[in-house]
Amino acid sequence: MTRAHAPLGGLLDEAPAVATAGAERFDAALAGQGATSLRAQWRPPVDGTAEALATVAGDPRLSEANAQAVGRLLTSRPHLVGIETARDALDLDDRTLLHAGPPIDWAHASGPMRGAIIGALLYEGVADDPEAAERMAANGEIALEPAHHRGAVGPMAGIVAPSMPVFTLRDEEHGTVARCTLNEGLGKVLRYGAFGDEVTERLQWMERVLGPLLARTLERTGPIDVRALLAQALQMGDEGHNRHRAGTSLFLREFVSDLIEIDAPVADIAAVTRFINANDHFFLNVVMPAAKAATDSARGLAGSSMLVAMARNGTEFGVQLAGTGDTWFTAPASVPDGLYLGEYGPEDANPDIGDSTITESCGIGGFAMAAAPAIVRFVGGEVADALRFTRRMYEITLAESTAYQIPILGFRGTPTGIDATLVCRTGIVPAVNTGIAGKEPGTGQVGAGLVEPPLSCFADAVRELAARAESPVTDPLAGVGAAPGEAP
Amino acid sequence: MTRAHAPLGGLLDEAPAVATAGAERFDAALAGQGATSLRAQWRPPVDGTAEALATVAGDPRLSEANAQAVGRLLTSRPHLVGIETARDALDLDDRTLLHAGPPIDWAHASGPMRGAIIGALLYEGVADDPEAAERMAANGEIALEPAHHRGAVGPMAGIVAPSMPVFTLRDEEHGTVARCTLNEGLGKVLRYGAFGDEVTERLQWMERVLGPLLARTLERTGPIDVRALLAQALQMGDEGHNRHRAGTSLFLREFVSDLIEIDAPVADIAAVTRFINANDHFFLNVVMPAAKAATDSARGLAGSSMLVAMARNGTEFGVQLAGTGDTWFTAPASVPDGLYLGEYGPEDANPDIGDSTITESCGIGGFAMAAAPAIVRFVGGEVADALRFTRRMYEITLAESTAYQIPILGFRGTPTGIDATLVCRTGIVPAVNTGIAGKEPGTGQVGAGLVEPPLSCFADAVRELAARAESPVTDPLAGVGAAPGEAP
Repeated sequence: MTRAHAPLGGLLDEAPAVATAGAERFDAALAGQGATSLRAQWRPPVDGTAEALATVAGDPRLSEANAQAVGRLLTSRPHLVGIETARDALDLDDRTLLHAGPPIDWAHASGPMRGAIIGALLYEGVADDPEAAERMAANGEIALEPAHHRGAVGPMAGIVAPSMPVFTLRDEEHGTVARCTLNEGLGKVLRYGAFGDEVTERLQWMERVLGPLLARTLERTGPIDVRALLAQALQMGDEGHNRHRAGTSLFLREFVSDLIEIDAPVADIAAVTRFINANDHFFLNVVMPAAKAATDSARGLAGSSMLVAMARNGTEFGVQLAGTGDTWFTAPASVPDGLYLGEYGPEDANPDIGDSTITESCGIGGFAMAAAPAIVRFVGGEVADALRFTRRMYEITLAESTAYQIPILGFRGTPTGIDATLVCRTGIVPAVNTGIAGKEPGTGQVGAGLVEPPLSCFADAVRELAARAESPVTDPLAGVGAAPGEAP
Repeated sequence: MTRAHAPLGGLLDEAPAVATAGAERFDAALAGQGATSLRAQWRPPVDGTAEALATVAGDPRLSEANAQAVGRLLTSRPHLVGIETARDALDLDDRTLLHAGPPIDWAHASGPMRGAIIGALLYEGVADDPEAAERMAANGEIALEPAHHRGAVGPMAGIVAPSMPVFTLRDEEHGTVARCTLNEGLGKVLRYGAFGDEVTERLQWMERVLGPLLARTLERTGPIDVRALLAQALQMGDEGHNRHRAGTSLFLREFVSDLIEIDAPVADIAAVTRFINANDHFFLNVVMPAAKAATDSARGLAGSSMLVAMARNGTEFGVQLAGTGDTWFTAPASVPDGLYLGEYGPEDANPDIGDSTITESCGIGGFAMAAAPAIVRFVGGEVADALRFTRRMYEITLAESTAYQIPILGFRGTPTGIDATLVCRTGIVPAVNTGIAGKEPGTGQVGAGLVEPPLSCFADAVRELAARAESPVTDPLAGVGAAPGEAP
């Protein structure tokens, strides 16, 4: 008698195999009786999202919209096409500054955000001293606007002032354009909230020498394929957010011969290479707008639950979905957990800040940490954590990158396209690594670490998506038999 | 009754636990009876070495000599201190060429070795055409000498001709000096046995422009710490032998600003950076003499079973031990197993060739493959193999590097200092990855792969070490009670 023909298909012929899910006590009770069980990783969805998740799951547009959204991330081909002045490229007037994260005003701005605003006003010559700058900003004389709203991104405070040079990236596949300032290096720099002569003089040199020389170099090299550089860098121990030693090296190699050949003073050319060589984060500000160009190409896809932005302004953490237009879903930003520089400690840390989570939104950064085990020396944790973070992100993403591969995982593509419904179903939040700014204005960087995005923004986003959902087709036969092109 | 007081210490109270070692049939017989056993990895020593291994193990100098030998590898601090002309630096006359591997004459030289000799004589202007060059070499008009005999190393054919510029490395810890030519790039190049106008013109440009410009650059930078660069590169996906994309990038970053500032035509400076940017193996020829300087510092330690060189001349594979002076122990070189370029296949491959196994002799290259999983795309195999090779090398090495760490193995130091007695005891040969030269003179590179060194050279080396061994102290009380400084 074959098993299939036994009573109950042979189900009772052997000892029962038990799988448990949800509350731990089921599993514990079995263990207490000496029974073996398999515990599934399932847990209930995030509080207050069950109904919304069901509604979104029933939206007939969901699957196709998400396939389109993540497809745009996967096929994006961002190229560095030039360097422009923010004033022209981003249509900035002299009384407007762009900043990182969702919208914020001076009253709610954190220390490093305020410090960077002060520093930018000093650099622009709009204010003569920090007190005047603070007064102007507090009086509402300075308009603050998220960089994201003008197709730009900025690391940490992310301040973009009119006179700053910006990298211009274009996604050659979808035509989207994104911009970012040039990276200043580590330590006492504007993006970490530092201000004063040292900061101003560096920004002036970047405006006068670095930007123009690189702009002329790019005219010689033509567009630089950032996806190709980043794909190589991920095979060289970078993860695309906080480790860019390989990317910065490859980027420099890509244009240095043309830089040497432009007609400019040798001392300026050598100053440019010295500046870049001293700053392994230089490539970050190229990767961020590359990721922004990719994610922007996936915006406005009704029904899609995929994230197109995660960003922090130092006070709040915010997300945007492909299917919910330009709405930000925000919650208070957490303080990162990490390693501190010198005498600094957790008590000096500002809450999470910066647009650089655009990298994670695009499947790199924290999502690619398995490619960069050495990063644990910078952000803390063990090598096994780096592998674990990446592996876990496959649980909340829609696809695996075809361009960005992780050698140690057998060249598996990085987990790409964060699905807010998967975040709410699993309670797994995106893995983010980040620099840590000092909370007092003017401090600068105090460390680097890992940070947990607040779950509630994802829950809010899913509820809004549910509110916009179309009803599922209720008649299972609706449309059946209709001729192609004929309305059902 | 405690177990210790039970009959036979309780040995028979429980089911027997069986461990097996050696011939597989013991283990198979137990398995056939349904018994569980633990199979040890032990196997008998390599044929004909048991007695020699026992003698060497009894040499009272062994332990201290090996500790000293590997200690010198671990503490070595090789710096690139300059670029010289081989004629002066290596005291080469116009009728002498240095080559890779143990000694060889024209009659026994393989195709790529002959091709490189022809190419070098054309480049030096000693011969007017390939036929004349071949005739001179065959007539014994050209002296051939291992580069190793003059404190130098060369990749693949490893030909060093008098007019070539050479990197000069100095171990700042032990004072040893080692040299190597500058890397020509991949494809139709002298070291792979190619010759003719393309090869000659490139070598002439290297002599006229590349060498002198880099020499002047090094005068500005001062000595470059190669250990520091290599340690970083191993955290960036290099392994130090056949993957140098990170090392080449970091090396270029280290000196490019000074290169820009030397007084030379801009076109020449840009040609230098373009040449290096186009050749990810450029750093190999810096790492090889760095490893040579380290291993040479461990030579001449009587009683030591540590390898100080592995090298191949395309016909034979040879090793030298710290404890056996300048004697080479050789055996026919194997043909590598790997990936082939274009239309080439295994039938086009020359046996293993080159001094680049000096990297493995120093604990990098094949020994550090776990740091460079992406290398399997170049040399073949799976990512798991890369991890396995490194892990297995801990079985035949004396120490773990303190400078060179592998992030994915939790920053474990690379397996360093190959012990010939461990090779013979375990039958595990050093893991070597390598470029593959075409066997016909003039072909150039046909692929890259992995190769197994022949066990018999290690066996011969151990037997010679045994012949030189001191007898163990036979009176266990000898020396007991002697005052410090008093002869026992």
